Amino acid sequence: MTTRRMGLNAVIFGLGSHEAGWRMPESDPLSSTNLEYWIDIARRAEAGGFDALFLGDVLALQQSADLHLSDALDPIVILSALAAVTKRIGLIGTASTSFDHPYHLARRFASLDHISRGRAGWNIVTSSNALEAQNFGLDVMPEHDQRYARAVDVVEATLALWNSWDEDARIVDKQAGRYLDPAKVRTVNHDGPFIRTRGPLNVPRSPQGRPLLAQAGSSEAGRDFAARYADLVFIVQSSLPEAQEFYADMKARAVRLGRSPESLRVFPGIVPIAAATHEAAEARLAQMNRFMIIEHVLAKLSEFLGTDLSSADLDAPLPAHVGSGAPNQSSQSRVAVLVGIARREQLTLRQLLSRLASGRGHLLAVGTGPAIAARMQEWCEVGAADGFNVMAPVMPQDLQSFINLVMPHLNISVGNKP
Amino acid sequence: MTTRRMGLNAVIFGLGSHEAGWRMPESDPLSSTNLEYWIDIARRAEAGGFDALFLGDVLALQQSADLHLSDALDPIVILSALAAVTKRIGLIGTASTSFDHPYHLARRFASLDHISRGRAGWNIVTSSNALEAQNFGLDVMPEHDQRYARAVDVVEATLALWNSWDEDARIVDKQAGRYLDPAKVRTVNHDGPFIRTRGPLNVPRSPQGRPLLAQAGSSEAGRDFAARYADLVFIVQSSLPEAQEFYADMKARAVRLGRSPESLRVFPGIVPIAAATHEAAEARLAQMNRFMIIEHVLAKLSEFLGTDLSSADLDAPLPAHVGSGAPNQSSQSRVAVLVGIARREQLTLRQLLSRLASGRGHLLAVGTGPAIAARMQEWCEVGAADGFNVMAPVMPQDLQSFINLVMPHLNISVGNKP
Ligand SMILES: Cc1cc2nc3c(=O)[nH]c(=O)nc-3n(C[C@H](O)[C@H](O)[C@H](O)COP(=O)(O)O)c2cc1C
Ligand SMILES: Cc1cc2nc3c(=O)[nH]c(=O)nc-3n(C[C@H](O)[C@H](O)[C@H](O)COP(=O)(O)O)c2cc1C
Repeated sequence: MTTRRMGLNAVIFGLGSHEAGWRMPESDPLSSTNLEYWIDIARRAEAGGFDALFLGDVLALQQSADLHLSDALDPIVILSALAAVTKRIGLIGTASTSFDHPYHLARRFASLDHISRGRAGWNIVTSSNALEAQNFGLDVMPEHDQRYARAVDVVEATLALWNSWDEDARIVDKQAGRYLDPAKVRTVNHDGPFIRTRGPLNVPRSPQGRPLLAQAGSSEAGRDFAARYADLVFIVQSSLPEAQEFYADMKARAVRLGRSPESLRVFPGIVPIAAATHEAAEARLAQMNRFMIIEHVLAKLSEFLGTDLSSADLDAPLPAHVGSGAPNQSSQSRVAVLVGIARREQLTLRQLLSRLASGRGHLLAVGTGPAIAARMQEWCEVGAADGFNVMAPVMPQDLQSFINLVMPHLNISVGNKP
Repeated sequence: MTTRRMGLNAVIFGLGSHEAGWRMPESDPLSSTNLEYWIDIARRAEAGGFDALFLGDVLALQQSADLHLSDALDPIVILSALAAVTKRIGLIGTASTSFDHPYHLARRFASLDHISRGRAGWNIVTSSNALEAQNFGLDVMPEHDQRYARAVDVVEATLALWNSWDEDARIVDKQAGRYLDPAKVRTVNHDGPFIRTRGPLNVPRSPQGRPLLAQAGSSEAGRDFAARYADLVFIVQSSLPEAQEFYADMKARAVRLGRSPESLRVFPGIVPIAAATHEAAEARLAQMNRFMIIEHVLAKLSEFLGTDLSSADLDAPLPAHVGSGAPNQSSQSRVAVLVGIARREQLTLRQLLSRLASGRGHLLAVGTGPAIAARMQEWCEVGAADGFNVMAPVMPQDLQSFINLVMPHLNISVGNKP
């Protein structure tokens, strides 16, 4: 029996994954612009046994619900600061291929990899929000497959820039006055459909050679992209069979491209609400849900589904026609997950809204530490996950509950049964 | 008599300002990719009384002398890391208006300002090197005045984004579920000749409102730009009368734009080589100069002057025709400074090369602590400087010598004689 390790990322998107978590009595929403907030979380996660921090990112203030908390410091700034005060934990930051240039991307992540001594990761996103396009001078987002075409070009150029230095290029021959071996630093002359860059990068090859690459595409184009480039694939699944299917599909795609199945790891997101008793955990979730503002979540669901639900009956099931509309291009699979949850669990619209608010369709795990740990273990043993994005609903409280109550019950090494 | 404070920035461009400093026995060129190197310098500078660190930046590996040390981590990554381990010192980073978008620039510097609690600064450059253009998909740099036209547009958009949040926009009314006051966060809808951006920024107004703005333009367009936007103007001057003239010109331009003369501060660069005796300081400079590789520095001088000097007599004065060629667009004033030094001090070409290698035309101050301090004091008293960019030739040694030997002799408050 070989063993592999269950991977665990601590995901931070603002103050936590629950839409209304900021209204909890213990939350301090102003703290998210203070470095102390981030250092506190990073240190808890590192001490608690997480492999990496993962910061999401969107290049716009999402004001659709205009009283909403979506401001966020630049992930590279936060992760660089955290590199200085942590020792071991990985630092994965999101950056968009649609609105940045490979020279900047390659340089920034290589720089982070240097200062962290090999702990940098890039969550590659193509962006999907029209507000992001408008912040960068466009009227609308480029079409979905165009974005992936650009993403391929950007990543290819970025990889070439990271490869423009050999590991031993810096010879530092003081005597002869030769700092570099010119044969080991090369121009790249990338000339693609979207991107041209000469190179070489002006940063020496970084400790990992290149940062870890993560991606969360779930469309056809997205899965192909991930199978080609990603070390880590983030997925949204609430149902075990569907997660197994996605998992198997990603491994198969990787194998078809000549990769080993282990070289691509699949991490579903999990929203853990752990407490000493099942009842206490349920009570905590109910408390958060009471703070949810129905109209805001309804607006978000309508946007995801491409269907205006503002006059739907909240205490009836999701209307039968929903899911057949022309959904927002890039949330097709999110739609499938949400509609699937609603139908499978026979939820009312109100219940579905709570589910969306508390974790956006990710696996919601409410209960005692041993129960949550057993569920995670199961997903890893039956081929649905190699690890998890742990999305605490309220920071730092639910992260700490996870560390205290769930972590001790995880066999971090998972038997890889033949 | 009012008093003002002489400002002091510790400038870091790689391993120090001397071209050949990396060959000194004590230099460790590999350390520039280690965070420890940067933390060590930042702590010395902070403890030593500097106001700010200033990191230069070029978006290319300059391989004209292809064995040269010009690799450099991204300044924003380094400064963000340093924000976590320093308390008081300013953090000024260089970023180019020619190859970045205001949304990224505004966000990154606002984020740095937040995590440092109000210590961020942006050295605004337009870039000038063809290699930079080629790394970003262009064949050549846009023409000089076009670059400044874009710089104006980029800075206007960036300022608008910083102003898109009022200080008290985050009301955090948990009871009512209102995080923001929507009247205090505004779109900017900037629509300029080069840049469109909708806004608002997705980062709340930062502690300083906006970061400190620095700039080093010396052309007509550059001076106009600086007079309009800069809090700090960096200049290259070796001659006191010429520095006074530049100083007076910048203050006059600021006043013509309705600014107070104190709101724009002028910092010449100084390359200090301080030692216990004048002889020891001269010996240290001579040692560095012996490591200089004549052909590399000659190539750089030829590039600056727009004249091929590879077959010129090293022990004769600078040929008479030099300076009349068609120089590299953006180094016109650097040319004037260098040619001025050569003629005024009747230097041979070899001597001029040493001067270029040891500080690129900045004021070279070699001697005891009291002597260097007296010179700096004089420049501040006669209207040539409000402070200095201190460019230690070899890091951290010459920075520490400056701190130990020069700092104690500076009256940091300079009498502002009427
Ligand atoms: C766990 C997870 C995290 C994500 N983080 C971000 C993010 O930070 N920024 C972003 O623009 N998109 C993010 N996404 C969206 C994905 O990048 C992707 O666009 C989405 O899953 C739709 O897939 P598709 O683009 O292949 O259709 C995330 C998705 C998942 C599942
Ligand atoms: C102290 C100092 C620091 C500078 N730092 C940079 C830098 O980091 N990156 C850069 O591209 N240019 C840098 N420059 C160049 C200036 O931004 C500017 O292009 C140059 O002084 C020529 O002025 P002009 O553009 O108005 O002709 C620096 C100049 C000075 C004097």
